[in-house]
Amino acid sequence: MTAPPHETRPSGSGRRLPDNQQGMRRRNLSRVMHTLNAEGPLSRAAVASHIGLTRAAVSTLVDELIRSGLLEELGPERPGRVGRPGSALALSGRGPAGIGAEIGVDHLAVCAVDLRGEVRARAVRHGTHRGRAPEPVIAELTELVRRVVAEAEGEGLWPAGLAVAVPGLVASDARTVVRAPNLDWHDTDLGALLPAGLPVTVDNEANFGGLAELWLGDDTPLDFLHVSAEIGIGGAVVVDGRLLRGTRGFAGELGHVPVRPEGPDCACGGRGCLEQYAGEEAVLRAAGLEPGEHRVEFLAERAAAGDKDVHRALRGAGTALGVALTGAVNLLDPQTVVLGGALAALAPWLLPSLERELARRTAGPACSVTVSRLGSEGPLLGAAHSVVRGVLDDPATVGVRP
Amino acid sequence: MTAPPHETRPSGSGRRLPDNQQGMRRRNLSRVMHTLNAEGPLSRAAVASHIGLTRAAVSTLVDELIRSGLLEELGPERPGRVGRPGSALALSGRGPAGIGAEIGVDHLAVCAVDLRGEVRARAVRHGTHRGRAPEPVIAELTELVRRVVAEAEGEGLWPAGLAVAVPGLVASDARTVVRAPNLDWHDTDLGALLPAGLPVTVDNEANFGGLAELWLGDDTPLDFLHVSAEIGIGGAVVVDGRLLRGTRGFAGELGHVPVRPEGPDCACGGRGCLEQYAGEEAVLRAAGLEPGEHRVEFLAERAAAGDKDVHRALRGAGTALGVALTGAVNLLDPQTVVLGGALAALAPWLLPSLERELARRTAGPACSVTVSRLGSEGPLLGAAHSVVRGVLDDPATVGVRP
Repeated sequence: MTAPPHETRPSGSGRRLPDNQQGMRRRNLSRVMHTLNAEGPLSRAAVASHIGLTRAAVSTLVDELIRSGLLEELGPERPGRVGRPGSALALSGRGPAGIGAEIGVDHLAVCAVDLRGEVRARAVRHGTHRGRAPEPVIAELTELVRRVVAEAEGEGLWPAGLAVAVPGLVASDARTVVRAPNLDWHDTDLGALLPAGLPVTVDNEANFGGLAELWLGDDTPLDFLHVSAEIGIGGAVVVDGRLLRGTRGFAGELGHVPVRPEGPDCACGGRGCLEQYAGEEAVLRAAGLEPGEHRVEFLAERAAAGDKDVHRALRGAGTALGVALTGAVNLLDPQTVVLGGALAALAPWLLPSLERELARRTAGPACSVTVSRLGSEGPLLGAAHSVVRGVLDDPATVGVRP
Repeated sequence: MTAPPHETRPSGSGRRLPDNQQGMRRRNLSRVMHTLNAEGPLSRAAVASHIGLTRAAVSTLVDELIRSGLLEELGPERPGRVGRPGSALALSGRGPAGIGAEIGVDHLAVCAVDLRGEVRARAVRHGTHRGRAPEPVIAELTELVRRVVAEAEGEGLWPAGLAVAVPGLVASDARTVVRAPNLDWHDTDLGALLPAGLPVTVDNEANFGGLAELWLGDDTPLDFLHVSAEIGIGGAVVVDGRLLRGTRGFAGELGHVPVRPEGPDCACGGRGCLEQYAGEEAVLRAAGLEPGEHRVEFLAERAAAGDKDVHRALRGAGTALGVALTGAVNLLDPQTVVLGGALAALAPWLLPSLERELARRTAGPACSVTVSRLGSEGPLLGAAHSVVRGVLDDPATVGVRP
């Protein structure tokens, strides 16, 4: 496959290119990048054969990409996987880097990922942000971003953009947090608070988690539903390799799908939402435990130690997940459901009741359920990789190293 | 807008064209067709300005489309809307026609629609098909198709393809009915039974209903959820002007979204599915009435006459629809929900409880609910128009009049 799945945000770098010679050139630059991303180092001739262009046309494209610092030629001293090492091309390990950031309820994290997908720098800071104003939290995050960018620059990289994952709904301007209930942030323009000088994108953590699964998961199909949980429950719907965002950018709110119409009141205004049965606090409550920090690790430990109350609580959460997912599977007919985020760590105790419910309720063969390898790392990696994918999708916009 | 929303079926005529000169020419032919479809008759210069090509380039494209019988020049005796009537171009009213067919549980219908979207021939036959084998039903349908094609040919049209709407799940080969419970058809290859010599596409009636809304509805947005009911309840998810089909082609099964996990058993194997509360038979049962023919007309008459039992039953159905739609709206964040098919006729009595439920359960401003103008005509018109859209999407494949 020469053009791997990619996600484009309407306002982002992957916008639709015009159907003229200039648009064709930009799409072909992108095809060269995606081919090398999917296949690893290749000769010019191999790239040409992969994308169905002449070798001369590919050479022109490649020269431009080398000049921009996006590709490098592997010299004979660094042999690639092909016959003549001197002629192999590779994505640059000293070119642009994607800076990803995550604002969690209990932590901040930042990382830099190069075009080859390797994490080259990383910083984390623990401490709760529940009820804190956005300004001091973003000031701390900015400090971490500066540290990670400096470290990446020390390795010869330069930041191509910053993407920030937040636990809340983000407007389609990709910078305003409309509502982050667990931080108590409302209509907060993070774009105005984040460091100037870098293109900034803000998105929901579940969206970045789903994209990370699409880009980095093992054999993830192009159509799947990603379910994740931290404090709340988030979903990401990926259709034909693209994230479904919805009209206002609010799609994927699986946590507020009604499971029992007359169930307990939910903070969203509804009743009996999935979050009331399978959210972290609901599970802790059902197990007779007190909410605190490190809730998931705590639940996983107790479950692994054979705590029958925790087992029962997780079984109930799995059943509720199964009911909500039945509705989602009937509507979307995905190839698979992926459990990510904190749910990945709890999967051994959630899966049996979840899969039973899904199988008995879904017509025809039930949709498969898999567990994410990325777990809680998904949103941060997804954020950083979204910047990298933006470069692969439209390398012409990155320009040369500043 | 020069390129109106269109639906492409992976295996259909709207497949992705290669990114080379030949692909560009075919896409530009399509742009000329779509521009005239959206704007009505225009001069060559106006078409050129709409699609951003030179007048010379457009003239070459137009000449090819006239030779193929897809466009015609309106002579001075048939003035168009532009200054010099002799130079106005229009989609041909004597070119290819889309033949649409509908297999209902209680009727068969066929129509021919020209490139301008006008229904030029039509045939209907009533009588129940519940439990009948596919062969005799398709033989009757074929007879109707022959009659409609002959009538269309009498008007100077020629059939470009046949699209058939069925009340069941259709495989992604677009010809095999996997399951049509109300006909009791299973794994039936309709493609083999339908008349040879015409390209045939089979699809679920709810899908064609949703597409009809996209193409023919008044101000229908590009992101909406279409809900329809005949015997069962069907849904169609349209995202960014495209129908979401799912991995196996089974997306949109709103009728089997769980409303009450411990509710009554459903034929699908689940429990408490929406169909058990808002399907026609469930509503008749809740109103203390017997299922028979013309169920919807009957319910609408009784409701209009002030029958309190029917009002209560429809109120309950509206509440169940509201619960199921809350989940769907949370997952998909559509711009609007459109009630189509039989639900359109019952909307006055369904809407109050449906909208109340949706408003109190959805976070933020509730999604708007509108009523389809097409009603039960949707699937048949959607089928015929799908063939016409196939011609607009890739006019090069139609060739010249046979």
